[in-house]
This record gives sequence, C-alpha cells and structure tokens, in this order.
Amino acid sequence: MNQAAPSDPAPTDALSRLAIMLESDMVGVNREIVARMHSPVALIPELAGHIVAAGGKRLRPLLTLATARMCGYTGEHHIGLAACVEFIHTATLLHDDVVDESDLRRGQASANALWGNQASVLVGDFLFSRSFQLMVDAGSLEVLRILANASATIAEGEVLQLTTANDPATTEAAYFDVIRGKTAALFAAASRVGPVIAGRPDADADNLEAYGMNLGLAFQIVDDVLDYNADQGALGKTVGDDFREGKATLPVLLAYARGDDEERTFWHRVIEDLDQKDGDFEQALSLMQARDAISDSAKAATRCAEDAKQALLSVDGESVLAETLADVADFCVSRAY
Amino acid sequence: MNQAAPSDPAPTDALSRLAIMLESDMVGVNREIVARMHSPVALIPELAGHIVAAGGKRLRPLLTLATARMCGYTGEHHIGLAACVEFIHTATLLHDDVVDESDLRRGQASANALWGNQASVLVGDFLFSRSFQLMVDAGSLEVLRILANASATIAEGEVLQLTTANDPATTEAAYFDVIRGKTAALFAAASRVGPVIAGRPDADADNLEAYGMNLGLAFQIVDDVLDYNADQGALGKTVGDDFREGKATLPVLLAYARGDDEERTFWHRVIEDLDQKDGDFEQALSLMQARDAISDSAKAATRCAEDAKQALLSVDGESVLAETLADVADFCVSRAY
Repeated sequence: MNQAAPSDPAPTDALSRLAIMLESDMVGVNREIVARMHSPVALIPELAGHIVAAGGKRLRPLLTLATARMCGYTGEHHIGLAACVEFIHTATLLHDDVVDESDLRRGQASANALWGNQASVLVGDFLFSRSFQLMVDAGSLEVLRILANASATIAEGEVLQLTTANDPATTEAAYFDVIRGKTAALFAAASRVGPVIAGRPDADADNLEAYGMNLGLAFQIVDDVLDYNADQGALGKTVGDDFREGKATLPVLLAYARGDDEERTFWHRVIEDLDQKDGDFEQALSLMQARDAISDSAKAATRCAEDAKQALLSVDGESVLAETLADVADFCVSRAY
Repeated sequence: MNQAAPSDPAPTDALSRLAIMLESDMVGVNREIVARMHSPVALIPELAGHIVAAGGKRLRPLLTLATARMCGYTGEHHIGLAACVEFIHTATLLHDDVVDESDLRRGQASANALWGNQASVLVGDFLFSRSFQLMVDAGSLEVLRILANASATIAEGEVLQLTTANDPATTEAAYFDVIRGKTAALFAAASRVGPVIAGRPDADADNLEAYGMNLGLAFQIVDDVLDYNADQGALGKTVGDDFREGKATLPVLLAYARGDDEERTFWHRVIEDLDQKDGDFEQALSLMQARDAISDSAKAATRCAEDAKQALLSVDGESVLAETLADVADFCVSRAY
C-alpha cells in the first residue's frame, strides 16, 4: 500500500531457497511427521493428516534444520526435533481454531469445522504429547527444557491474548508480550535447538535464539499488517479477518493511541463492541492511513528483522545458510510493503 | 445395591490412611503445585487454582509418593514428579470438561462454565507444558519417557472414547481400551515413576506399573458402576449423569450384549439416540439388574483389584506402605458394593 515506503524490487523468495538447501533433511522431517502421527485410533492420523497436509511453510522446522546445519551439526537428531517443533505448532493451531471458533485454516475447512471441537482439542493434546515423546528420543534434557519452556510460554501468550481481546486500548507493550508468547517463543526455541545439539557455546545459542525471537516478532507483526494491507492477498491471508473478529493488533493499537476522541469512539464500537457495518473496514483503513498506523507497524517489523540479522552476525557458521537466514528475515518483512 | 453380593463391613478408608502416612510429602506436593501454577498472566493461577482447590483425592500423586517411598527412595524428586502427575491430571480434567460440555466438576461450577471453553483449553495446555517443565527439573529421561508415553496414551483413549460414544454395542474390549487409556495409563505411569527414581530393577517397575494399571481399571469401572448404583451417592458421584449423556460404560454394554431385541431397542433409544423420558433411568436399572450387568461390572473391578494386589506382592518393599497400597485396591472396589 502507498503508506509504506516504496521498497526494493521483490527479492528472490529466501524462504523457498532455504527449503531447497535443506530439502533432503525436510524429506526426513516429513517422513517422521507422517510416521509419528500414526495411532491405532484412526481418527488421530486422519485429523492430524488433514492439518499437516494443508501445508504451510514449515518455517519453524526449517529454523531447527538450518541453525543445526549452520552450526556444523552432523548427527540425525535435528530431523526428529524439527518434526517435534512442527507437532507443537500443529497442536497449537488445532487449539487456536477451537478458541477462535475458526471455520477456515489455510483456505481449507478447519479441523474443528470438519470433526468438531472435541476431536480438535484431544488430537491437539495427542500431538503435543507426541512431540514430547520425540524429544525424549533425541535424548537431550537441555533440548527438552528449551521446548517445554517454549510450550508454557506459548500457552501464556495465548491466555494473555484472551484477556486483551477486543480492547483497542491494549498497550504496545502488552501486544508485544502476546506475540512474543504466542508466536515468537516457538521461533526462538526452534532456532536455539540447532546450536544446542551442535554443542555450540551458550553465546551462540543465545544469539540464534535472539534471531528466532526477532524473526518471530517480525513475522507476526507482518501477519497482522497484512490483514489491513488491502492491495495484497499475499500468502493465503484474507484481508479483514482480524478486523471482523475485533483483534487488537498493532495497526489498531497505533491508530487508537494516536486517534482523537471521535476516532476512539469508532474503534471502541468496531473492535470492542464488534458493532460493524458496511464501510467500517474502509473507514478503519482510512484512519490507519491518516495516523501512519500501518506504515509504522511495518517499520516495527523491519526493526525486528534488523535485530534478527544483527544477532545472526555474531554467530560463526556455514556462510550460505547464515546469509539465507538473514535474507529470510528481509523476505518476511518484505511481504508487508 | 442388592444385586451386588453383600460384602464385608466397610473397611477403614485405606486411601485416607495412605494420605496420612505420606502427609509431609503431600505438603511438599501441594506447595509445589501452588508455586508452579504461578504465571504473570493472572488468569492462569486463577483458573488453575479453582480446579486444584476443588480438591479431589490426589490419588495419582499419592501413587508416585507411595511407590517411591515403598522402594526406599530417599531423594526429593518424588515431590516434583507427584506434582507433575497431578498437573497432567488437572490438564486432562480441564479439557474433558470442554469436550463433555460439563457445567459441574466435583460438585462445583466447572472452569469452562466460569471462564469459558477458550480459557479452559489454553490453561490446560499451560498446565500440561508446566508438567513437562517439572519433569525436566527432575532430570530423568526415563521418567520423561514414562510420562510422555502416558500423556499420548491418555489422549488416544479420549479420542477413542469419542469414536465409541453413545454406542451401546461397543465391545467390552473397546471399553477396556478406552479406560486403559483415559484413566489407567496415568495411574500406571504414576506408579512406575516411584521404582524408577528409586533405581529399582525393571521387574519391580513393571510390577508396580501393573499395580497402577489394574488399580486404574478398577477405579474407572467402579466410577462407571456408581453412576447406576442408586443407593450410594458415594464420593461426589451423581447418579445417572453417564446415563443422561448416553455414555457406553460397562454396565450398559453388558446389559445390551445380554439383552433381547426389545431391550436392545430400548438401549439404542436412550444411549444412541439420547431420546430419554421419565422412568427410563429406572427401566435401565431394572434391565441391568435382570442381566446382572451391575454386579458383573463390580466383579470385573474386583478382578482388576486382585490383579493389582498380585502384582504388588512381587515387589520387595517397605511393608506398611505395600499393605496399604493393597488395601487401597480393595477400598477402591468396595465403593461399588
């Protein structure tokens, strides 16, 4: 949209390049995912298969693979641990859809719409348990600690999100607490696992964790921006969904915080009371534009991506992977412009 | 009820005796539970505290404490692991109430009735994650494997229960698969953790696990029997709840399997179609009595309790605790008569 600074020509898709570099590892991850979804209870692989097959970018397991390889890891545990990261992510998606009462996920009918909330809750629990079984197989208490902590932080972020839902006066700090938990914690953990299994010193693990954390923040902010970025239906995101659900995302918070009384009355009506009528979405876009809320949100994402790249610079490692991870941060943010 | 053989006078409550023997350990467990429910997200301790404070018998953590002490364990990890077992149990209760759409839990308003399904799903996820953090603190991969496996088995049992719900023609084998997963797996794991942290040989761990498994089966069968045992509102169980929800429990399966066509038509109507009218519960009781369905269910529980005691006999250990654990099996079954 034109409130964003005109950016460089679209870069080559760094995420696709990363996936190609790690293709043989990802074949192993996908094989592990399919194998470990298995259960004698047929509904489990059926439902889990639906959401896993729906795809997604597999960004989180790629982070585990990439950071492990970048740190010179030559073992095999990164495969199972990448699958485990994807299982945790899938379990949270299943539960999110129940919590959000979503009927769609990645453009397809969501699992809860097809099989009901009950099955989605329980199969989510199964995948979550299964991810811990996979971690035990990898045999590292340090990795278990990282991922158990991330899981608890994700749940905390999701609960916090519930308590700030539909409040346009949510502070920027509270917004960052929510997305740090619900999204960035798993990116951070996925990126810390690589250096840890590679036996790297804590400083490297801390830096790669900081890379993942900031990448995750940028990723979520961009996701929230795209909901208001009417020129792009990029990457399967449907414009206006968050608005219709009254989500207190960064563009809303900024527009509210910078708005006058009349504007705040509008935001309370549409976000808090969910009393929306024709033209409200366009009105929201226009207010956001007047208050630089979308462009400044995109800039916040850019700052996070810069922080991610900065943290990455401090880690010695295989240079092509390191450069591609840096490009992934840029690519992630480029979607917002 | 009079379909059950008149039994011995009610034994002293062995579970209370066990709790008294392990009182100082349980003080530590309760302290750990309260401390580890803490989160900066206030809704988490609020909601979790509601269900934890509602009490319950703390049977599962007592099994971990008792088996550890019986095996001569002198360390401190049994405290955290017992809390962890209770957290897993609490997480499953929160999710069960969402799945069952229950408004009551232990005679109080359920968490989902008070805070909504969304919060119950997410706080359940938090407690589950927290339990794995507690396990990591205990530092044993073997214990992590036991409890991760149990968690996956619980979820499988719950999903299987969904798929057999409201089917009076569910086989006895399928019923046992469900209760082995949803209930007995955690009893078994809780009882295996004790000998494992005490460094006992596999044979002892296997036997104590078998004790827990059979105790859990007996416990669940008795719970299912009590729903039809109109003379006793024992231990907080409300008579007729399972019937009204059309649960395919052992008394129903036996009455159905042994019934004639007319009886089966009745069971299909009330259990499968949930088309129930005044007098149906009394009719169900009368059919169960005619087919020995309640008394034979109670006998099945007795057999499980005998198997539990048999497994216990094979383990050398502190004799007063061992005897009390045997008495707990008897006590558990005595509730059904």
